[in-house]
This record gives sequence, structure tokens and C-alpha cells, in this order.
Amino acid sequence: MNPPVPIQRLAIIGVGLIGGSLARALRQAGAVQEVVGCGRDRENLEQALALGVIDRYCQDPAEAVIGADRVFLAVPLGAMRAVFAAIRNHLAPGAVVTDGGSVKASVVADAVTVFGIVPPWLVPGHPIAGTELSGVAASFAELYQQRRVILTPLPETDPQAVLAVEAMWHQCGAEVSRMSVEHHDQTLAVTSHLPHLLAFGLVDCLAQMAGNDEMFRYAAGGFRDFTRIASSNPVMWRDICLANQQALGEILARFAGELDDLAQVIRQGDGTALLERFNRAKAARDRYLESLPTPANLSAE
Amino acid sequence: MNPPVPIQRLAIIGVGLIGGSLARALRQAGAVQEVVGCGRDRENLEQALALGVIDRYCQDPAEAVIGADRVFLAVPLGAMRAVFAAIRNHLAPGAVVTDGGSVKASVVADAVTVFGIVPPWLVPGHPIAGTELSGVAASFAELYQQRRVILTPLPETDPQAVLAVEAMWHQCGAEVSRMSVEHHDQTLAVTSHLPHLLAFGLVDCLAQMAGNDEMFRYAAGGFRDFTRIASSNPVMWRDICLANQQALGEILARFAGELDDLAQVIRQGDGTALLERFNRAKAARDRYLESLPTPANLSAE
Repeated sequence: MNPPVPIQRLAIIGVGLIGGSLARALRQAGAVQEVVGCGRDRENLEQALALGVIDRYCQDPAEAVIGADRVFLAVPLGAMRAVFAAIRNHLAPGAVVTDGGSVKASVVADAVTVFGIVPPWLVPGHPIAGTELSGVAASFAELYQQRRVILTPLPETDPQAVLAVEAMWHQCGAEVSRMSVEHHDQTLAVTSHLPHLLAFGLVDCLAQMAGNDEMFRYAAGGFRDFTRIASSNPVMWRDICLANQQALGEILARFAGELDDLAQVIRQGDGTALLERFNRAKAARDRYLESLPTPANLSAE
Repeated sequence: MNPPVPIQRLAIIGVGLIGGSLARALRQAGAVQEVVGCGRDRENLEQALALGVIDRYCQDPAEAVIGADRVFLAVPLGAMRAVFAAIRNHLAPGAVVTDGGSVKASVVADAVTVFGIVPPWLVPGHPIAGTELSGVAASFAELYQQRRVILTPLPETDPQAVLAVEAMWHQCGAEVSRMSVEHHDQTLAVTSHLPHLLAFGLVDCLAQMAGNDEMFRYAAGGFRDFTRIASSNPVMWRDICLANQQALGEILARFAGELDDLAQVIRQGDGTALLERFNRAKAARDRYLESLPTPANLSAE
């Protein structure tokens, strides 16, 4: 296989943790010649420039995509439609556009609304990576190494565009999978969106209780880790919850049932039923841990 | 202030992560002369001996406490009553007994059942420390450094016994607070017991869904941290949930209400209400983080 042709000009709309880390990773791999940043926060863009993450910036997406052969959209889901509308008449011929949105149906729907069709040059994607931090200062070249990236091409998507995006993520050290838009949104509702909602909900619940400052003082490491994701970007997560309304609603109802069941078991003092559930959960989590690409697991490859 | 008199003989009933770490910390501080271990798992006790955590062991609590001036109970809450009954007629005169149970009302109730009174020599305690690992192999001398230990003495408790236990934890590097049994149990229901229940519940919910192995594969770091506590000891957590039935039931109901509210807000697509909750949660979590004794915070002291 020939090495992939480097990207000539990459336009990144939204130069935060996700967009900034992509730029850094591609630069480190020598896989991009020029990176143009675009965003609303000028201070953040100046910082991206100073850090060498981007070569130049502008604040208008229409201007940013001019002459770019690759465009990466890393804005909150609520801003996707406006960005599509802005770049509509300015994309270079042959440009491939992909995104990092955590929900795929809403991104596709936004594109269809703006372009009237499923654009063949749009490869909906989602890198399963991140930290609870935001902004370009939090970005780093290794973010995607050994992480999974899911692409959700549609029947209308150009197979060459999919290959190009796949190659781009491989150069960042990621493992790329493909699945349907619906399957992606259901899977992420369970493994990511619901946990975030629970963490936000728990901290919010606690924050509204009398004497909560004192209670927080006695919270241990388990609480810190459990609620880490409640320090995530609220705007981004508002958008994700609204964009994945249906799948999230279904898993929320399911989880509420589980919780109701646990409450009843505790009320009845049914230690056997409780232990059965805890054992099942621990076994599943331990299996999940074993499946992770830890350094130890990798060395056994 | 004079340095505290070293403990002559410490009996540890339950030589796991919590009991083993106490022994290691006190040894490291030169604050104990002899440590006698006791437990049901002979292999674990042999390991404790080999690791130098204990000097000798036996498997009968009655025998273990003979001649001990300090006794530490680090067994699951469900075993406390049986241990009290076993040691009842064997404690040395002047011995001070304390425990590491995560619920205090049930420990006090068990003691009252066995002894007929609130024993003045019993100082109910709870070190807010731990990992999701179990057994003496997971123990380490630094576990309690800069961690909080809560003591919940009752009006009947001998103040000298409380001071002795306080001094013991100080020698492990812990920060000791006192509060009422009820306040402890309510606080821990919120900051520890509910999060554990949610983590167990989430993983169990997921484990019961079709195709869950594949879903776990796409779980990211947020999920790993969020569910870390679901790898905790199921027996220990069954006991905690049953022992703190009432306070846990109350906070569970409160949280179910919060979740219901979030589900409704998402269903209605009310981004403003959702953002308000997420902002409030993030602000509370960030405040909590700032209050933690991180190395950075400590250096500013």
C-alpha cells in the first residue's frame, strides 16, 4: 500500500480539545501541510497559533474552507447546521468534510436540511476520545492513539471520501470502525451520554442539598472519578442530549427501571438479589477492563 | 504535647485493603509493637505474614483480641455482629475497639445487641479511603495520608478512647473529624453509597442488553472512570446498602426525581433548563475539586 497523500490544507472549524488534537497529531505524523483554524473565540485561536497547532486563522467558516482539501468540523452539535450553511458555497471541488460530533443522526439531518441531499463528500465521524477539559490548551497529539474512531457513512457517501478520512485517523494512531448512524447513536447513548447525564445529575442533586459544601468535603476518590465527567463542557453536553433525544430517552427509561428495582430490593432487605446484581456488574466491568488496550494487554500481542 | 504512647498489641480483624493498610501505616510510623491478624481466608493471612503486615495470625477473633490494647474491626458490615459476639468475653481490660465500617448506625446497633449497652470502649469510625481492590495484597502504608477519617462517638463513649483512636489515625497521616452517627450515614449515602449503586446499576443495566460486548468496546475513558467503583467488592457493598437502607433510600428517591426531571427536560427539548442544570453541576464539581488536598493546594499552605 502506498503511504497516504498528505493533506494539503486542513480547515478545522472549532479549534478546541478535539480539533486541536487532530491538528497536532497530523502535524506530528507529517500528514498535513497547512492547517487553517476557525472559531468564535479569538483568544483561543491566538493561543492555537502561538502553540503551533494552526498556521493561520480566520473567524468566518466560509473563508476558512477556501482551498481546503479536508475540513474537520469540531463545533458543538448545536452549531453544525449554521456551519454547513456558512460553508455551503465555498467548499473547494473535491474537498472531503468530516466531523467529530458525538451524535451522528443530527449531523446528517443538519446537512440534509442545508444541502437538500446527503452530501457524498461528507463522512460523519466520531472519535471516542476526550477529556473533561476544553479549549486548544488542553489538546495533545497523542489523544487519539489506540482510541476508536467510528465512521457512519451512508449509502450516498463517496467510498473514496470514507477511505480518505479513515487514512487520516489511522495517521493519528486511531482504530477506525464503521457502523450505521442509528447503531452509533444507540451505543453512545448507553456508554457515554447516559453516564454523563448521571454524573451531572448526581452533582446537581447534591449541589441543591442543604449543607452540600460540607458533604463534598467527605467525598472520596470514588466520587471524584465518578463525577469527573460532570466537569465537562455544559454547552457541548446540552447539545448532545438534545441531539440524541430519542436513544437517550430510551436508555434513561431503562436505567430508571433498574434503579427502581434496586431501590425495591434494598427496601425489602433482599441481600441475595442485591449481591446477584452487584456480582453481575462487577463481572461485566472486569471483562470490559480486560478488553481495554492497556500497555499490559498490548505487550501480550 | 507528648508523642502518643505506641500501641502494644493491635488486633486486626479482617486483614484486607483497609485493615492491612492501617497496620502498614502504623508500623511505618513506629506506632505499634505487635500486630495480630485475624480472618477467614488463611491464604490471605499467610500473605499478610509474608508481606510483614502482621506478626502472627489466628482465625478466631476471640483468640486474636487476647491481650490486645487496640482492636480494629475491618470486616464487612454484615459480619460485625458475629465478631462482637465472638470477642465479647475476651477483650483485655482497657482495650479500645474501633472499626472501619462505611455505615455507623448499624455497627452501633450490632454492638448494643451484643453488649446490651453502647460500650464506652467502642469508638465507631470510618476512614474515607480505599480503592476498588480488595485483600491484603492491595494494602499500602500511604492509603490514609491526607485522607479524612470520621469518628462518630456517642454520649456513652469514653473521651479517652476517642483521643486514643484519633491519635492512631493522625499517625497514619489522616485528618480526623467527628460527627454524629446519623450525619455520617446521610453524608456517606450521598457521596459514596449512591454513586456506587449507580455505577453497579449502570453496568448491570448495560450487561443485560443485547450486544453489550460490542457496546462496551466503544466505551471511552469517561465510562471507565465512571464505572471504576463497579469493580468494588460486591459483598461489602451489599452489606453497606442494606446497613444504610434508610438514608440510601431517601437519597435514591431524591435522585430518581432529579433523573425524571432531566428526562422530561430532554423530552421537551428545553435546552435552557438543561444548560442551567449542567452549569450548576459543573460549577459545584469544580468547587469540590478546588477543595481537594492536591499537591498543588498543599504547597500553597
